[in-house]
Amino acid sequence: RTLRIGLIPGDGIGREVIPAGRRILEALPSSLNLNFSFVNLDAGFETFQKTGTALPDKTVETLKKECDGALFGAVSSPSTKVAGYSSPIVALRKKLDLYANVRPVKTTAGSSNGKPIDLVIVRENTEDLYVKEERTVEGPNGKVAEAIKRISERASHRISTIAGEIALRRQGIRAAAPGTSAHTQPMVTITHKSNVLSQTDGLFRETARKALAAEKFSSIHVEEQIVDSMVYKLFRQPEYYDVIVAPNLYGDILSDGAAALVGSLGLVPSANVGDGFAIGEPCHGSAPDIEGKGIANPIATLRSVALMLEFLGEPNAAAKIYTAVDANLDEAKFLSPDMGGKATTQEVLEDVLKRL
Amino acid sequence: RTLRIGLIPGDGIGREVIPAGRRILEALPSSLNLNFSFVNLDAGFETFQKTGTALPDKTVETLKKECDGALFGAVSSPSTKVAGYSSPIVALRKKLDLYANVRPVKTTAGSSNGKPIDLVIVRENTEDLYVKEERTVEGPNGKVAEAIKRISERASHRISTIAGEIALRRQGIRAAAPGTSAHTQPMVTITHKSNVLSQTDGLFRETARKALAAEKFSSIHVEEQIVDSMVYKLFRQPEYYDVIVAPNLYGDILSDGAAALVGSLGLVPSANVGDGFAIGEPCHGSAPDIEGKGIANPIATLRSVALMLEFLGEPNAAAKIYTAVDANLDEAKFLSPDMGGKATTQEVLEDVLKRL
Ligand SMILES: CC(C)[C@H](C(=O)O)[C@@H](O)C(=O)O
Ligand SMILES: CC(C)[C@H](C(=O)O)[C@@H](O)C(=O)O
Repeated sequence: RTLRIGLIPGDGIGREVIPAGRRILEALPSSLNLNFSFVNLDAGFETFQKTGTALPDKTVETLKKECDGALFGAVSSPSTKVAGYSSPIVALRKKLDLYANVRPVKTTAGSSNGKPIDLVIVRENTEDLYVKEERTVEGPNGKVAEAIKRISERASHRISTIAGEIALRRQGIRAAAPGTSAHTQPMVTITHKSNVLSQTDGLFRETARKALAAEKFSSIHVEEQIVDSMVYKLFRQPEYYDVIVAPNLYGDILSDGAAALVGSLGLVPSANVGDGFAIGEPCHGSAPDIEGKGIANPIATLRSVALMLEFLGEPNAAAKIYTAVDANLDEAKFLSPDMGGKATTQEVLEDVLKRL
Repeated sequence: RTLRIGLIPGDGIGREVIPAGRRILEALPSSLNLNFSFVNLDAGFETFQKTGTALPDKTVETLKKECDGALFGAVSSPSTKVAGYSSPIVALRKKLDLYANVRPVKTTAGSSNGKPIDLVIVRENTEDLYVKEERTVEGPNGKVAEAIKRISERASHRISTIAGEIALRRQGIRAAAPGTSAHTQPMVTITHKSNVLSQTDGLFRETARKALAAEKFSSIHVEEQIVDSMVYKLFRQPEYYDVIVAPNLYGDILSDGAAALVGSLGLVPSANVGDGFAIGEPCHGSAPDIEGKGIANPIATLRSVALMLEFLGEPNAAAKIYTAVDANLDEAKFLSPDMGGKATTQEVLEDVLKRL
């Protein structure tokens, strides 16, 4: 099987980590019978400055027509408002209907400060405040701006269903690594703020409850947690959680919170998943402070490559990458500076490749 | 001076901690020349079940006409949607125009796991998604619900101004306790998500920048942080922060996150502050799991009493309470179960009172 992968480095350290993602795909053992071809695609703030658009039509069209999956690096946020600029990754998620943002957060012996964590945040990826429908009016007391938060039954149902499926699939993973989780049963925690937003978050909560009550999910233990408490609990008892399903914005916030628990955002991958397409994306941003130094942690990208492969139906290839990455972290000899090490992006990559 | 204080225990452990708040006011040394009178007021889920409203008009009217300040305990969130029920504290904040929710989070020797933390979250308290303007329509693919997130220049300006004032005032506090903060200059961190919400959060950010550029704030160092990164940084580097100003919902989430860092929500106070009125409110909720056991931590309430007194212009009385509470925590002899101790609400209270 040959998979065609779009490479969208974007801005900042996106350009340093996406090449590492390509390298690991090329280095996968031939016994897997997987081949890859690549196409480089533009997006980001620099693209916006050059062409007036942050997400050229050509990028979207090429992904739709030619590609099986893609890797996305990061984009800069301009430090003051720039008319007409808007985040290309948010647009891409919507244009390709990549409705689930899957963010596994896990410790290995090398990355843990004590508590083993092995959870997945499943973030709705197309609506909530990310519909970006805003308006501003000039009132008697100055400007008043409004944004729409939209929650639909359809999107809430499909995100909860994929969360349930991931929980069922993980049961296997957990059994293979005893002691890494506090549960004996797969669990999904529904996060919302329906005590304030009874209609929108109320709809999310109800729909998630219904979706997870399906016969096929009968082995799953379902809990819920109000978003503010969820952040509190996540910090106090992260080892308790398995799969957390959340509307878009809460998922965004929770995944950064969870990343802090495992030591560095530089470890945390994500996949933007739709029906038959997946974009791997490291959770860290463009990191202007370390841009160009060659010291960005490639682990988040390598894990994002694996996650993309999982959702493209290649779990064995994914497993190879996860195992190699975990071995690198456990040995802790080649760690990048965000992990307290001294290795460059290149050195971390080489160490992982050699373990494939 | 006699202050008349409304007591609104609400539900759950609210009824166990608000009496402790009353006791400490009654126990303040007579040298302060402060007297208190009290009026008990109803609100909460049980009130709703009895009377059909969670916030009776009488409660609001009595607070407006008779009281100088109030203490609010907690309210239960019903575990499934209950028609007509809506949170009385959210309504109260709006009806009394208590536009700032001030939440100091600090470690003492007894409550720290290493890093000293001494920060204040200043949360806008009247708008954002808390305007609760929602609607649901039945579409071709099921229900679609929408909520309005409203951000005004006026509310953003006044919350940023009070954040600046608190930062200036804290400079004194910090100087008196060297080593508890990493800064040499007061700092305000503006939190937003203007990379996605350019108009609403963009307006918050710009207005906060303008408000904090006022001459009287020239000694303040102003930074900003996108809300997801803010959660990450708060976990990784909490000792770095001084005053954090945020729109309503982010402030809600950040304050629970910060509470997790100091060991227990049971330690964290808040004050809902308007012009000339303040309601002290512990940040923990109604805690149904420990309700009725007499083991709720009264510290959050005692500190909320002090915070209320600060905003009612009684800093000396407030200082007495803070000092007594810190001494209780530092000695760590009478700690409630959430802190790893065995003391009851009553025992913790008595230990604090004896140090007044
Ligand atoms: C860059 C930003 C628009 C994006 C988001 O909010 O989704 C990022 O924070 C993420 O988590 O992928
Ligand atoms: C109970 C709830 C409505 C409230 C809020 O969201 O403001 C609580 O979480 C708080 O922080 O005071």
